[in-house]
Amino acid sequence: MIRPMSLDETRALLAECRIGRLGCVSDDWPYVVPVSYIIDGDNIYIHSLPGRKTRAMRENERVCLQADDIKDEFDWRSAIAFGRYEEVTEMGERDWAMRRLLSRFPHLTPVESVPVHDGQSSVVVFRIRIDGISGVREK
Amino acid sequence: MIRPMSLDETRALLAECRIGRLGCVSDDWPYVVPVSYIIDGDNIYIHSLPGRKTRAMRENERVCLQADDIKDEFDWRSAIAFGRYEEVTEMGERDWAMRRLLSRFPHLTPVESVPVHDGQSSVVVFRIRIDGISGVREK
Repeated sequence: MIRPMSLDETRALLAECRIGRLGCVSDDWPYVVPVSYIIDGDNIYIHSLPGRKTRAMRENERVCLQADDIKDEFDWRSAIAFGRYEEVTEMGERDWAMRRLLSRFPHLTPVESVPVHDGQSSVVVFRIRIDGISGVREK
Repeated sequence: MIRPMSLDETRALLAECRIGRLGCVSDDWPYVVPVSYIIDGDNIYIHSLPGRKTRAMRENERVCLQADDIKDEFDWRSAIAFGRYEEVTEMGERDWAMRRLLSRFPHLTPVESVPVHDGQSSVVVFRIRIDGISGVREK
């Protein structure tokens, strides 16, 4: 039986997942990529190298992040957050977000964090300012 | 080091994954949901209960399916197929697709397959007719 999750259940799933799938619209096509993320209040923070997805989101700020926990086809939860893409350029917030991402994802090498601190980084840090969330589960 | 995958590597990843994330555009917003799927040649077959995603895809046929194998943040592969949504209404093809889905996903209960055979099913069977694929990997 598939049923909607409460807002609390949905928030909990979004907070518990580490990898999500970022959805955006690129040249009128949907585009989906896996990303590591953290949530802070109503913002989702993600970092990325510049490329198709950052180009797409700069052109169309409407994005979503989908996260799930799938045990099998009949025992799963899936949540989605919709929101607006905002690039994080203020150095204090950018540094804070990178530190949070690095502490949650220890596999991220120091190499990725160093350029952030010297202001030379090509890494794009952005947040999704959440407009709404919803979730469904089965079982 | 992130690098593009060859078409063969990309096809292999799409064929090997069982769960993907379907991306579509719903009321000008990207929308992403996890789905079980099978690939046959240039078609991806999926079944779904009617709902937001089927409504969205009936309005905007441009969809994508993203699939990945993520070991950690620095050892992963991700593939994406772009294509057109086509509902499968011909009973022979619908039956064949459901049988393939059921044989690949034994957790799908017989309950889901029975209505397909008596013509009363509300389950939507659709294919994505693939226009193009691409993939990237790290490590």
